Amino acid sequence: MSFSATVLTLHPEMFPGALGHSLAGRALQAGTWSLETVQIRDFATDRHRTVDDTPAGGGAGMVMRADVLARALDRAAPQGDARPRLLMSPRGAPLTQRRVRELAAGPGAVILCGRFEGVDQRLIEGRDLEEVSIGDYILSGGEPAALVLLDAVVRLLPGVMGNEASGEEESFESGLLEHPHYTRPQEWEGRPIPEVLTSGNHARIAAWRRERALELTRARRPDLLSGKNRDGER
Amino acid sequence: MSFSATVLTLHPEMFPGALGHSLAGRALQAGTWSLETVQIRDFATDRHRTVDDTPAGGGAGMVMRADVLARALDRAAPQGDARPRLLMSPRGAPLTQRRVRELAAGPGAVILCGRFEGVDQRLIEGRDLEEVSIGDYILSGGEPAALVLLDAVVRLLPGVMGNEASGEEESFESGLLEHPHYTRPQEWEGRPIPEVLTSGNHARIAAWRRERALELTRARRPDLLSGKNRDGER
Repeated sequence: MSFSATVLTLHPEMFPGALGHSLAGRALQAGTWSLETVQIRDFATDRHRTVDDTPAGGGAGMVMRADVLARALDRAAPQGDARPRLLMSPRGAPLTQRRVRELAAGPGAVILCGRFEGVDQRLIEGRDLEEVSIGDYILSGGEPAALVLLDAVVRLLPGVMGNEASGEEESFESGLLEHPHYTRPQEWEGRPIPEVLTSGNHARIAAWRRERALELTRARRPDLLSGKNRDGER
Repeated sequence: MSFSATVLTLHPEMFPGALGHSLAGRALQAGTWSLETVQIRDFATDRHRTVDDTPAGGGAGMVMRADVLARALDRAAPQGDARPRLLMSPRGAPLTQRRVRELAAGPGAVILCGRFEGVDQRLIEGRDLEEVSIGDYILSGGEPAALVLLDAVVRLLPGVMGNEASGEEESFESGLLEHPHYTRPQEWEGRPIPEVLTSGNHARIAAWRRERALELTRARRPDLLSGKNRDGER
């Protein structure tokens, strides 16, 4: 059974976008995964096809209506649909490689792309949405975030990576940033490849790489060393 | 002067992708920003147009060559080009809204999309690349990350948001996750809008929202409260 993604959005024209090319695109064509988009606006009931309204209590921006979104969700993922229902939102739990792996091992995902100021909280609670954030910055909407999440998931589906499979993931999942890489030419602009890497001494190479990875992680991401972040206890 | 983005990639067909629609797409057409893609492979010199080679010291995957990438970069951003040179990479410093704001206030960005196992470290040092990560997960390549970064930046360019501008950003930048939102209908599936929000008492509403934001942040992102993350000291 292939991985089935359904994306609820006001901008179905943004999909498959980057996912229609390269690895993900070939896997889509091969049927390794499927992608369906649902235009939220089709579930509005007034003649202006309204999907949002002003925030209760006042404030800037517009809020997406619970009733319209619920109709779209209930059609896209009826009762018994075992796929997790995600809402892309900067308020969400940070996406981790662990969650990506879990999603890739499952039947698919129903992904709601928020826009404007946000989504009525009653929908999040009433439909048990899992709020997911891809990072601490603000996007124009959930669509670019959905593309990123699906890209991360699809590359883990069986058969997708092929020969491009690599040790990157394992390294990343060790909780350290990756050591530096080098390849030919042996010297470039007066900079040689570090001698140890051409020594043929595998133990020395492994030790050097681990030391560099630790150094880099200490400098850039001390939070990873304290064990409180990435692939944490969620 | 408009914001000028140049993306170096093995997959120029992925651009503008989602950025060709909605807010970013209209701004692109209006000339508020420009997007140029450079096919890295055009800068290979052998007849197979090789851009990568096996890692020095052994290991899985392939490494992108410093010499090929440097030729592409030097053509795309010659000496004197004031734009920051970014490398999208999971080893990078986490992207923050602060960095997004800085980029949006500048002349543009030259963005190198890594693929495979990574990029020769000598290029990163020799061309002073700023490694940027959009989150703690692995993508098929830097392209979806570049799309996300540009989406975040473009929405901040003058004139892009128009009436869709909102208080979301300020709230987010307060260091707390946003309080929940509600809008009409007044009752949905037996769930009413919280009474305080329809009280008309602005002080009570503000206090309630702040309390909810604190609660949510404590539950989901205690790291933000310790002041060690988001918009941190990088």
